[in-house]
This record gives sequence, structure tokens and C-alpha cells, in this order.
Amino acid sequence: MKELKDYVISIPDFPEPGIIFRDITGILQSAEGLHMAIDQLQKELDGVEFDMIAGAEARGFIFGMPLAYNLGKPFIPVRKKGKLPRETVQQTYDLEYGTATIEIHKDAIKPGQKVVLVDDLIATGGTIKAAANLIESLGGEVVKILFVMELAGLNGRKVLEGYDVSAAITYEGK
Amino acid sequence: MKELKDYVISIPDFPEPGIIFRDITGILQSAEGLHMAIDQLQKELDGVEFDMIAGAEARGFIFGMPLAYNLGKPFIPVRKKGKLPRETVQQTYDLEYGTATIEIHKDAIKPGQKVVLVDDLIATGGTIKAAANLIESLGGEVVKILFVMELAGLNGRKVLEGYDVSAAITYEGK
Repeated sequence: MKELKDYVISIPDFPEPGIIFRDITGILQSAEGLHMAIDQLQKELDGVEFDMIAGAEARGFIFGMPLAYNLGKPFIPVRKKGKLPRETVQQTYDLEYGTATIEIHKDAIKPGQKVVLVDDLIATGGTIKAAANLIESLGGEVVKILFVMELAGLNGRKVLEGYDVSAAITYEGK
Repeated sequence: MKELKDYVISIPDFPEPGIIFRDITGILQSAEGLHMAIDQLQKELDGVEFDMIAGAEARGFIFGMPLAYNLGKPFIPVRKKGKLPRETVQQTYDLEYGTATIEIHKDAIKPGQKVVLVDDLIATGGTIKAAANLIESLGGEVVKILFVMELAGLNGRKVLEGYDVSAAITYEGK
């Protein structure tokens, strides 16, 4: 029987020599892979009490929305700067070269609400740490962080210390 | 009882004077609105035979993925240029100012496969027409195009003439 990992397409030397790119579109291109990914993420939420799912643009939308639908919760898109039309809170974080800014609508989360954060990949953890900061700046509590894949060699878990983090697939390298 | 339209947040004079921005995050922020949106889109697929769902970045991911999961189909992300790691086909189309390029993986669709295209909004129809062209360039057939919202005053349906187009919500204006 196939495992979720079998649906990931590994592309050596992309985007640069020495890096293996883990392509999740291989999961999505298969009806079985897609179902398996969502079901495995959903299983991590068994017994977790929460009010909403938040997903990071753009691949966090892909994996977060089916969970929101299946579990009867709202979905909060964490977007790149300039995409949300109403009042937002913003967070800027460092990338390898330069910075990036993400935002969420200010009225999306009320103080005390419990949020599950979803993204496709944890690498250095920078984006999701920024997203968690945004949620907390509105008084929300991040009760769980779900990833489809983890690149353990990049130590993203260290950046997310103190959070309850799960990944459906772990790669030891970078 | 609330209708789907009641969850859309209308923002006057955004992004410029005279334009009313129809914000679908109001749908997503409500568990009921979110369920209603997906269920209404899904109902449009009753009796439609198809092989996969394709969604346009980024809000087409939001509405397309729950449909793919619920109906047991693969999901093909139609992405902005440069985001997909494997061999792609590309299509460039005109915007109000300048152009944009979208792409899909070349191996995502085989000749004869039937595709349902999903996006949040039909305005001028340019993005979705380009996505349909991409699908057809690989030999796929677009059997249905689903939108959450239609701005009828922009005549996007004219651009999509010949396709089976449905929108869950229609606004008469622009």
C-alpha cells in the first residue's frame, strides 16, 4: 500500500544545486494522495478543541480549507501584504534575502479564540512563526500547527518551540 | 435564514473610487457561510462527469480543494508564473495594466480528461479563459466552470462563451 510520502515528487537541484525540492503537487494530482493527506492532517486534530483554521498563502489554503469544511469551522486566510481589503494586522519577517510581510483581517479572531494553523511545509519556520505572532497579537491562541511536510534539517521546530507541531511527512535533510 | 450573499462583505470605493469590492473572506469567516458556499458549488456538479478539479491561485485553491476532497478527485493548481517546480505550459493574458502569466504542470492533464475549473470571482474572465486555454493545450476538456461570485456588469461570460459557467452569487454591477 502506498504511503503519503510516495506521492511527493522529489526534484534534485531545484531551485539551486544541492537542494532537493519536495513537490506536493504530486499528492494533489492523485485522488488517493489528496484524500490521504487531508485525512492524516485531520487525524492530528482528534480531541483538539478549536474555533477556526488559519492557512498561510497559498499552499496553506490548499490543505487548510478541506479541514475547515470537514470539521465545520471558519477559515482565516493568512495573506501576503496588500491582498486583504479590510483592516489588518501585519507582521514582517526575515527571508534568506530580504523580508516578507503577511497579514490577517483584524476582525478575524477574537480574544481567547483557539486557532489551528496549517501550511504545506515547515522549513525554517519563519512564515508560520510570523502567522502565530499575528494570531496572538489579536488575543488568539495557537493550539496546534499542522504541516504536510517537515524538513527536519532546517530546525524549524526550534523557531516554533512551545507550540504543538505535527507534520504528516518528515524528511531528515534540508 | 441567511443566504450566501449575506456573508459577502461589500467595501465601497476599494481599491478605487466607484468600485465596490466584494470580499469573500466574510464567507470564510463563518462556519455556516463556508459550508454553504462549498455545498452550493458542489450542487452544480450533480450529474457532471469529470476527472479533476483545477483551481486558480489563490482563491480558487480555497474553493476548489474541498470540492476535490468531497468528490474524490485530484486537484490541479493553476499557478502564477514561477511557482511550479516541474515542466509547465504557460499562458500570458492581458490585465487592465500590463499582462500576467499563469501555468500548470504539463503532466497534470492527459488528453481527453475532463476538468472542472474553479475560481472565486468572474470579473472580465481573463484569468479563467487563460486557464481554460492551458487545459485545452494539453488535450483536456473544460466541462464546467464554477465561480462563487459573478460581476455581471463586466461581461466575463462573453469571454467564456461556449463553456458551461455557473456562479453561486450574481451582482448586476461591476
